[in-house]
Amino acid sequence: MSITKRISAISPSLTLAITAKAKAMKAEGKSVIGFGAGEPDFNTPQHIIDAAKDALDKGFTKYTPSSGLPSLRKKIAEQFLKEQGLVYDPSQIIVSSGAKHSIFNAMFALVEEGDEVLIPSPYWLTYPEVVKVCGGKSVFIEGHKENHFKISPEDIRRAITPKTKVLIFNSPSNPTGAVYTEEEIRAIGKVVEEAGIWVISDEIYSKLIYDGVKHFSIAGCSEALKERTVVINGVSKTYAMTGWRIGWLAAPKEVAKAIDSFQSHATSNPTSISQYATLAALSGSEEELDKMREVFNDRRKFMIERIRAIDGLSCIEPDGAFYIMLVVNKLYGKRFNGRKIGGSMDVADMLLEKGVAVVPGIAFGDDECVRLSYAISKEDIATGLDRIEEFVKEVF
Amino acid sequence: MSITKRISAISPSLTLAITAKAKAMKAEGKSVIGFGAGEPDFNTPQHIIDAAKDALDKGFTKYTPSSGLPSLRKKIAEQFLKEQGLVYDPSQIIVSSGAKHSIFNAMFALVEEGDEVLIPSPYWLTYPEVVKVCGGKSVFIEGHKENHFKISPEDIRRAITPKTKVLIFNSPSNPTGAVYTEEEIRAIGKVVEEAGIWVISDEIYSKLIYDGVKHFSIAGCSEALKERTVVINGVSKTYAMTGWRIGWLAAPKEVAKAIDSFQSHATSNPTSISQYATLAALSGSEEELDKMREVFNDRRKFMIERIRAIDGLSCIEPDGAFYIMLVVNKLYGKRFNGRKIGGSMDVADMLLEKGVAVVPGIAFGDDECVRLSYAISKEDIATGLDRIEEFVKEVF
Repeated sequence: MSITKRISAISPSLTLAITAKAKAMKAEGKSVIGFGAGEPDFNTPQHIIDAAKDALDKGFTKYTPSSGLPSLRKKIAEQFLKEQGLVYDPSQIIVSSGAKHSIFNAMFALVEEGDEVLIPSPYWLTYPEVVKVCGGKSVFIEGHKENHFKISPEDIRRAITPKTKVLIFNSPSNPTGAVYTEEEIRAIGKVVEEAGIWVISDEIYSKLIYDGVKHFSIAGCSEALKERTVVINGVSKTYAMTGWRIGWLAAPKEVAKAIDSFQSHATSNPTSISQYATLAALSGSEEELDKMREVFNDRRKFMIERIRAIDGLSCIEPDGAFYIMLVVNKLYGKRFNGRKIGGSMDVADMLLEKGVAVVPGIAFGDDECVRLSYAISKEDIATGLDRIEEFVKEVF
Repeated sequence: MSITKRISAISPSLTLAITAKAKAMKAEGKSVIGFGAGEPDFNTPQHIIDAAKDALDKGFTKYTPSSGLPSLRKKIAEQFLKEQGLVYDPSQIIVSSGAKHSIFNAMFALVEEGDEVLIPSPYWLTYPEVVKVCGGKSVFIEGHKENHFKISPEDIRRAITPKTKVLIFNSPSNPTGAVYTEEEIRAIGKVVEEAGIWVISDEIYSKLIYDGVKHFSIAGCSEALKERTVVINGVSKTYAMTGWRIGWLAAPKEVAKAIDSFQSHATSNPTSISQYATLAALSGSEEELDKMREVFNDRRKFMIERIRAIDGLSCIEPDGAFYIMLVVNKLYGKRFNGRKIGGSMDVADMLLEKGVAVVPGIAFGDDECVRLSYAISKEDIATGLDRIEEFVKEVF
């Protein structure tokens, strides 16, 4: 066998066939509303673009220290302090090529053969794949739909075994948009602290929260828990900077040092120009972000209302990120164009025939839903939901 | 234990102490000539900068396919065909965040627990660290100083065991600057093909070769060997684009597919802006590269001549890259300022006191040398070598 076991273990993408089909339909000139978007449909704010151009003019196109520019690591540490009261030395901040990269680094440093990793479900589909690559075993904890898909401290307590090494925590959540309250997080933090396991807290959507709901980092529960937590964040979603590939982690010193060393051999520094742009993003006005958040919120409200008006469908109101889980299980067992609807893959496949691309919930561990992104225009959302309603009417 | 075995295995950098000392000296206002540079001291050519700005203006700041823009993968495949007669489908090209990242990906896909990896010595210090991270064991093959530090087919044959999985091949070589001839490579290729092992061929310096010497890729030996070879290259050294972080690999389909899938979960796409800049670099004129190569060659010749004029030192003429291995072992056993010189670390340490920073050869597995880079100005090279001569005179 040529390919290593760790890489052979990666599952082929469940959504690849649907994406390919949507692309083919578009190429044929058919109208397809794409609810699959995982990135803001806004441009990177102009002052950030300008900072990148300035870096280009100044010749900042050379290697930087492999874990990021000292000025950027300092800025990120300052932001943790200012926004969440979390004290980190700049040496505890490792800047990487996107938050996904930071998650991989954290997992690679903490999880090895036989370790169990707790993952609240529905989950972002990359988590279990990275766990597999590291030799770990994912243990899924099913969220409660009646509480916005959230898991309880008791759920975690029950799932912990002597092999448990890490809990992956993701608030605001992709795909559910659920945001845990400070109270909920403190209760979970207590269980985790008692068990002495680690937390990888993916907070990439921390600034995309609506209607006054507040973000709280699990690292803020206690000094002891902070010493066992790796916090992940980045600029991709907040500043519409997905293509720039800048994310970071904040970790206890020992872990940061290990990841620093690993990154120096595995990838070296993230793109220098993107680092300077990120420095501008974190130093500049958040006016554009505020505007973007308002637009997202407007779409979110419109979408929730529109979905509630469709008989046979429902959704659980998300407080953050830019996704809604559409509950479609009432359609199961019924027929569309003579074909029986067995699960979320069927729904996604049939919706595509109606000109709507969605991500089947089974990709996130929840076969009762499909995920809709509202990182697309309100017009497209309206047209897409009209088509979904038509589909549902044809089914019933 | 919190940190995984694989990451704990990484050795702390041997050169860190010296780098820190050099930095401290500079901060104190002392003059230090830095022969440690691992990147061209030129700016990225203007037409590439302009292409990046154009990408920024056009809003090309979003996710791209995780293994790179189709247009870029196609361009790279075309270049392999045009320059080396190697036929790759664009799907066999994986664009990553620098050639270092490509090397990590290739190793991660091919090397697992217990596998042996052959590494010609002196070697680039990242190779054995990445082997360790993947659970493999490095088997070093000592190069022959009398043949420009190169290894022979017979050396490889002797080193192969049933556990051998990969040979890392690096021509032009960092740190020696050695370039294997086509004849030498074909002889090595034969041994490798017979043994049925894999080759990771790091060709990042392929365009920095001097005085008419030609680059030949080991993947060009035969179709069978190409099917067991992963070729690594990138824009960092060729176009003075180290900070942009774009490298790539070309691999047999099965391997490319596995790495494609792994990269989609571990980092996702390299920076979009850098990809557009790379497309411009590969499509544009090579005038700037030609100029840069001439300057490097001029410095190289000057340096070789200057070193030969110093009694007690010698060097082996490099044909490529921008490094010279300075042979310093005649100083061993003698004293400088009362301290005995025991090896390359001592030489590096003492040279620093004379205001010259070099990399001790032991970092590359050769304790008889120190590495000098000529990616610094001729004036600095001259001053630095004057100081080295002074040091040698004080020793003898």
